[in-house]
Amino acid sequence: MDKPNPLPRAGAMPSGAGDRITDVPGVSVGHCTLAEASSQTGVTVVVPHPGDLFMAKVPAAVTVLNGFGKSAGLVQVQELGVLETPIALTNTFSVGTVLAAQIRQAVAAHPEIGRDWATVNPLALECNDGYLNDIQAMVVTGEHYLAACRDAAEAVDQGAVGAGRGMSCFGLKGGIGTSSRRATLADLRTFTVGALVLANFGMPGALRIGGRPISRGSAQALADVAREGEKGSIIMVLATDAPLDSRQLRRLSVRTGAGLARTGSFFGHGSGDIALAFSTAYTVPQDPAAPMPAVAMVHESMLDPLFQAAAEATEQAILNGLWHAETVAGRDGHVRRCLRDWLDNVPGA
Amino acid sequence: MDKPNPLPRAGAMPSGAGDRITDVPGVSVGHCTLAEASSQTGVTVVVPHPGDLFMAKVPAAVTVLNGFGKSAGLVQVQELGVLETPIALTNTFSVGTVLAAQIRQAVAAHPEIGRDWATVNPLALECNDGYLNDIQAMVVTGEHYLAACRDAAEAVDQGAVGAGRGMSCFGLKGGIGTSSRRATLADLRTFTVGALVLANFGMPGALRIGGRPISRGSAQALADVAREGEKGSIIMVLATDAPLDSRQLRRLSVRTGAGLARTGSFFGHGSGDIALAFSTAYTVPQDPAAPMPAVAMVHESMLDPLFQAAAEATEQAILNGLWHAETVAGRDGHVRRCLRDWLDNVPGA
Amino acid sequence: MDKPNPLPRAGAMPSGAGDRITDVPGVSVGHCTLAEASSQTGVTVVVPHPGDLFMAKVPAAVTVLNGFGKSAGLVQVQELGVLETPIALTNTFSVGTVLAAQIRQAVAAHPEIGRDWATVNPLALECNDGYLNDIQAMVVTGEHYLAACRDAAEAVDQGAVGAGRGMSCFGLKGGIGTSSRRATLADLRTFTVGALVLANFGMPGALRIGGRPISRGSAQALADVAREGEKGSIIMVLATDAPLDSRQLRRLSVRTGAGLARTGSFFGHGSGDIALAFSTAYTVPQDPAAPMPAVAMVHESMLDPLFQAAAEATEQAILNGLWHAETVAGRDGHVRRCLRDWLDNVPGA
Amino acid sequence: MDKPNPLPRAGAMPSGAGDRITDVPGVSVGHCTLAEASSQTGVTVVVPHPGDLFMAKVPAAVTVLNGFGKSAGLVQVQELGVLETPIALTNTFSVGTVLAAQIRQAVAAHPEIGRDWATVNPLALECNDGYLNDIQAMVVTGEHYLAACRDAAEAVDQGAVGAGRGMSCFGLKGGIGTSSRRATLADLRTFTVGALVLANFGMPGALRIGGRPISRGSAQALADVAREGEKGSIIMVLATDAPLDSRQLRRLSVRTGAGLARTGSFFGHGSGDIALAFSTAYTVPQDPAAPMPAVAMVHESMLDPLFQAAAEATEQAILNGLWHAETVAGRDGHVRRCLRDWLDNVPGA
Repeated sequence: MDKPNPLPRAGAMPSGAGDRITDVPGVSVGHCTLAEASSQTGVTVVVPHPGDLFMAKVPAAVTVLNGFGKSAGLVQVQELGVLETPIALTNTFSVGTVLAAQIRQAVAAHPEIGRDWATVNPLALECNDGYLNDIQAMVVTGEHYLAACRDAAEAVDQGAVGAGRGMSCFGLKGGIGTSSRRATLADLRTFTVGALVLANFGMPGALRIGGRPISRGSAQALADVAREGEKGSIIMVLATDAPLDSRQLRRLSVRTGAGLARTGSFFGHGSGDIALAFSTAYTVPQDPAAPMPAVAMVHESMLDPLFQAAAEATEQAILNGLWHAETVAGRDGHVRRCLRDWLDNVPGA
Repeated sequence: MDKPNPLPRAGAMPSGAGDRITDVPGVSVGHCTLAEASSQTGVTVVVPHPGDLFMAKVPAAVTVLNGFGKSAGLVQVQELGVLETPIALTNTFSVGTVLAAQIRQAVAAHPEIGRDWATVNPLALECNDGYLNDIQAMVVTGEHYLAACRDAAEAVDQGAVGAGRGMSCFGLKGGIGTSSRRATLADLRTFTVGALVLANFGMPGALRIGGRPISRGSAQALADVAREGEKGSIIMVLATDAPLDSRQLRRLSVRTGAGLARTGSFFGHGSGDIALAFSTAYTVPQDPAAPMPAVAMVHESMLDPLFQAAAEATEQAILNGLWHAETVAGRDGHVRRCLRDWLDNVPGA
Repeated sequence: MDKPNPLPRAGAMPSGAGDRITDVPGVSVGHCTLAEASSQTGVTVVVPHPGDLFMAKVPAAVTVLNGFGKSAGLVQVQELGVLETPIALTNTFSVGTVLAAQIRQAVAAHPEIGRDWATVNPLALECNDGYLNDIQAMVVTGEHYLAACRDAAEAVDQGAVGAGRGMSCFGLKGGIGTSSRRATLADLRTFTVGALVLANFGMPGALRIGGRPISRGSAQALADVAREGEKGSIIMVLATDAPLDSRQLRRLSVRTGAGLARTGSFFGHGSGDIALAFSTAYTVPQDPAAPMPAVAMVHESMLDPLFQAAAEATEQAILNGLWHAETVAGRDGHVRRCLRDWLDNVPGA
Repeated sequence: MDKPNPLPRAGAMPSGAGDRITDVPGVSVGHCTLAEASSQTGVTVVVPHPGDLFMAKVPAAVTVLNGFGKSAGLVQVQELGVLETPIALTNTFSVGTVLAAQIRQAVAAHPEIGRDWATVNPLALECNDGYLNDIQAMVVTGEHYLAACRDAAEAVDQGAVGAGRGMSCFGLKGGIGTSSRRATLADLRTFTVGALVLANFGMPGALRIGGRPISRGSAQALADVAREGEKGSIIMVLATDAPLDSRQLRRLSVRTGAGLARTGSFFGHGSGDIALAFSTAYTVPQDPAAPMPAVAMVHESMLDPLFQAAAEATEQAILNGLWHAETVAGRDGHVRRCLRDWLDNVPGA
C-alpha cells in the first residue's frame, strides 16, 4: 500500500492501528479487480470473522438513508438482526451473479441448506460504475466473488480496487476507502469502530475536505468535466468490537449519514445511500441446541463515543478512498482523474 | 383451467368477472413451469400493464409482514414508490438469475440503461420450494423468465404452476392462487382489487377454510405427514384500478395480513410474508420532460371498501390456490397431496 | 367478577392460570372508571413490574398496524427499546392530561428527572369513546391516572371498566379484555404470553367468534343499529416472561395483527391499531454504573410458539372483553348493548 | 428584529426574500415567550396556511433521525400524510398541555370533532430546556399556545424566543432559527424551501460554522463551561411550495440530517432529532364530498435542488438561531452565553 492520506483528518478521535476496518479484530477484506479495457469493475468482500459465518452469525443492522438502490439481502438483516455470509460489494448489474455465488458457497459448506435447514441469506450491495465500466457487459462471475473471498486479509487496498475499480466520487475517481476510530466510553472501556465504503456519489465540485469546500475554481472545473457523473451511490459498512445488539447497531449505522454529509453529500435523489453495521463482540448460533450468547450490551447512555466514531470513520473512509484512488480510463474513452492529480495540477485546487 | 372452487367463499364482497388479478384491466400473468423428476419449480410473472413499464412506471408499495426472506428489489420500491419491471416470482435460489434476466430484458429494450440513464430496478420475489424441488440444482435460467413473460395473458392458471410448482401450504400442495373483489366506495365509484399469491406457508393442520379450522382428525393427520414442512413463506401481490398513491398503496398492502391470518397463519418466524401492491390508474413517466400525472386520488376516508377487498381477495387467493393445486411428487420421493384429494379421502376432513 | 367466557376458545394453546395478562408474573392492571351521565370513560394502566420502572426499565417494542391514532410515547420506545412508566390507556382527548400526570408521578419519585437526569418518556395510548362518552368534556384528570395506578393488582376486571368504559366493538359494547397463552418452546421451556386490549374497533356485523361469522341476520341487525360506530381503534398490549430483546418483541407484537384479523377486523382506515409488547425476563438499568443484563435470549428459530400465543391471546382478549362487557348508556341517549344480551335476545344471533 | 447573520453562509443556493420559513407564501410563525426568573420557556407555532387547517389539510411527512424524544402526533402524520393543526413547539414537559389546547382549539372551531366526525390529531414537538428553565414547574398553559397562534405572522423572531427561550446549543444559547433557500429545478421552475428549527443540541465545542470547526481553544473553553449540556434535541420543520406528495416530503425531510451534521452534530444518543416537512402547493379536504386535489407532483428526477435546499436551509437556520440568540440566565443561576458574546470575548474564538 501507499503513503497515508495527508489531507486534514476527519474529527478528533484517534484511529486504530491501521486506520482501517480491519482494526476491529477478526475482520478481513478481500478484492477481485477487473481492469481490462472497458471492463473496470470488480468485487470486494468484508468478512466479519474468520470462522463459519452461517453457523456463527454476527449481529447486524441496516439503515437505508436513500433507497434508490438495488442492494439485495437487506430485508432479512432488518428482520433477524444477523449476517450469515460475507458482505459482498459489486456493481449494480452483478448483484444477481454474486447472490448466486454466495448461495453456492454456503451450500458447498453446508449441504443441509435449502433441504433440512432453512435457506441462506446472501447479501450483495452495489453501486453503479457505468461511467467507467461497461456495466451492460455483466463480466463479473461467481469465480470473481470467490477470488475476493480468498483474498480476504487484514491489509486493505483502497481506491480503484475491487468493487471500487470503476466508481466515481464528486466527479473524481472514487472507490473503496476505509478508516477506523477508537472510542472510550464513560466506563473507560475502549472499542474500535471501523468503516469501509464503496464511494460512488457526490455532485461534482461539492466535495468538502476537513469540512471545508474545495476552492470555487476547483469546484467549477470539476463540475465542467464531470457533469454526467451524478448518478451515484454509497455503501457504508461499519464494524465494531463493542457489544451492541441489533437495535443499537441500527442506531450506530444511522450515524454514517453524519460523516457522509460532512464530505458534501446531501443524500442525493439518485444515490443509493445504504449503511450496514455489525458487531464482532459475540455470535449467534445457527444451531438451536447451541447456547445463546449471554452478553452485557453497552449501556445506552454510553453510546455517544461510538456514534461519534461512526460519523468520523465514515467521513475519513471516504476521504481515504479519494486519496488512494488512481486515475482510471474506461469505456468509450471515459476517464476519472484522481484527487491527487487534481490537487497537484488544478490551479487553486 | 378447471372448475371453480366450491369451498366457502372468503368474505362478503362480489368478485370480479374472473375472480382473478387480471380482472384489473391491463394486468396479465404468465408462467413457466419446470416439472421433471426432482426439478419441480418455475417462474411466474405479474405484468402491471401491456406497455413499456420502464418508460411508464406504475405506483407501488411494499409491506414486509415478516422479513425472513430473500426477495430483491424492494428497497427501491419503498423509496421511489414505483415499479418499472414485471413482478417476477420464483424459488429462493433463483432470485439472482431472474434479477440478471430482468436487467438484460430492460437493457435490450432501452440500451441507455446503465449508460446515459440510471439503472433499472429488477424485482424478484421468492419462496423456498426445497421440499419438492431440488433447489440446490438451481435449474431456473433467464430464458425461463422470458418464457413466463411471453406467456403473460389474462387467463391465470393456478396451483402447481410457474413459481408455484414446488410450493407447499399447510402441509398440502400450495402454489399460485388468485382472486378479486369489487369495492364500491362511498361516492359510488366501483373499483377492483385483485390478488395473486405464491403460497408456501402454514403450519400443517392449522388451515382454516371460510374461517373454520379443519377437523381435528384432519389437522392431526396433516401434522403427522408434513412435520417437515414449516419453513414457508408467502408473496402476495395486489393490483387495483383505484387511483391511489404509493402511501395509500402501502396501506392497502398491509391488509393482506388480515386475509392471510384468516387462513390460519400467525406470520410464522420462518415465513417471509411479503406484500406488494400497485395501481393501474395512472403511470409515472421515466422521461422528466413528459407530463406528470395530475390525478385525484381516492379520499382517505373512502378506503375501507378497498381495504376489505384486499383482505378478502388475499384470503380467497390462498384458498383458490389450494383448491386448484394438484398432487406433486418431487425430489427424494417427497409428495405433497392436494387439498381435493385430502378432502375426498381423509375421514373427517 | 363473573363467569368465564363460554364462547368457543381462540386457538389451541392452553391459557395461563387466570387467562389474563397478569399470568405473567409481576404484571398488574388497574382501572379508574368514570360512569356518570354523559361521562363514560376512564383510565387503565398496565404495570410491567412492581418495582421502580424508571430505574429498572423493561425491554419493549411497538407495531403500528394502522396509524390513525394519537397515542403518545411510541417514538422513544421504538428508538430505545424500553418502557420506563406504566402503560396508560385512556380516551383520545385525555392523552395530554395523562402524559402530564405520568411526568408528575415520575418526577415525584425522582426529582433529578429533567434536571440532572434526562426526562422521562410518558406513554399514553388511546381510543375514541366519543359515541357513549362526552369526549369534549375532557373530564379525565391526573388524579384518575394515579387512582388507576393505586388500583393495580393481579385481578383484572374486564369489559366496560377503566379506559374501556365508553368503548364500542363491532357495534356492541367493547372495552377492556385480557387473556393469556402458555407456549412451550422446542427446548421444552414454557413461557406465558399475556394480552390486554382496549377494544373499540370493528365494522358492525363483521364479528367472528371462533373464526365463524355471526349469523347473517344478526350481522344485519347490528349494522342497522350501529351504523355510526365505525370510527374505532384498538390498543393491544402483550406481556411475556420469555427473554426477548426489543427486536424480537417487535416481531412478537406484529402477531397481534393475526389475532385481530380473526375477530373480523381488516385494520380499517379509521382504526388506530397499535400494539406494544414487553418482556419481564430482565430489566435495563437507568443508572449507567449498574450492571447491564447478561441474558441469553430465546433462539430465533424457537419463537413460533410465542408468536402463535401472541395471536391467540390477542383474539381471545378481544372476545373476553366483548363477553364481559355490560350494556352502557351514555351521552345523548346513546346505548351500546352487550354481546351477552345480544346473543340471548336477537333471533338467530 | 436585528441585523443579519454575518457568519459564513451555509451552502451556495440563494435565500428567499427574508431568509426565513415564511418566504414560503402563506406560512406564518408565532411565539409566546415566558421569561421570568426560573421560568425560561415558551411556545412557538408554525402555521402552514391562513385558512382552516382541519378542513384543508396540508401534505406532510416525518423523519425520526433519533427517537430519544417525546414529540406527539407523529404516528398519524406518518400514516395519513397530512397535518391538520398548527405545528406546536414547546418544552418536553408541556407536550400534554399543548396537545389538550390544540384539541380544544379544533373543537371550538368544529364542534363535530369527536362526535359526528373523527377526532383531531394534535401535534406537539419538544426539546428539553431544563438547564435554564425550571421544567418541573410546568408553567406553560393552553392560553400560551393560543397566544402563540394569535402572534403568528410573516415576521419571525429568532433566538431566545418562544419555545426557544430556554434552549441550549453546542454549550451556547440556542433556540429558534429560520432560513430559506430558492431551488430551480431542471424544468426551470423555482420553488422555496424554508426551515425553522428549535435547536437544543450539540456537544459543547463541536460547533462548525461554514463547515469549519471553531478554534481548538474556543472548543475547549466551551466544553469546560458547558459540560452538563449534552442532553439536547432538535426539531426541524421544513415548508415548501413545491408540489410534493407525502412520500416525497419524507424524502425531503431526511435531508435535514445533512444540514444538521454539517453544524457538528453526529445525531447524539440523547438528542431527539426529528424532522417534519409539509407542502403548501395544495390541500387535502376533510370533507369526502369535496374535490380531491389533482396536482402534478415534481418529477422524481428533479428533486435534487430541493434536497440540497433542505440541507442548506436547515444548516443555515441553526446558525441563524445561534447568531440571533441573546444570553439568558435561568434557574439556579444557570447561564447560557450567546454566540455573539462568545465570538467577541473568547481569545481565539
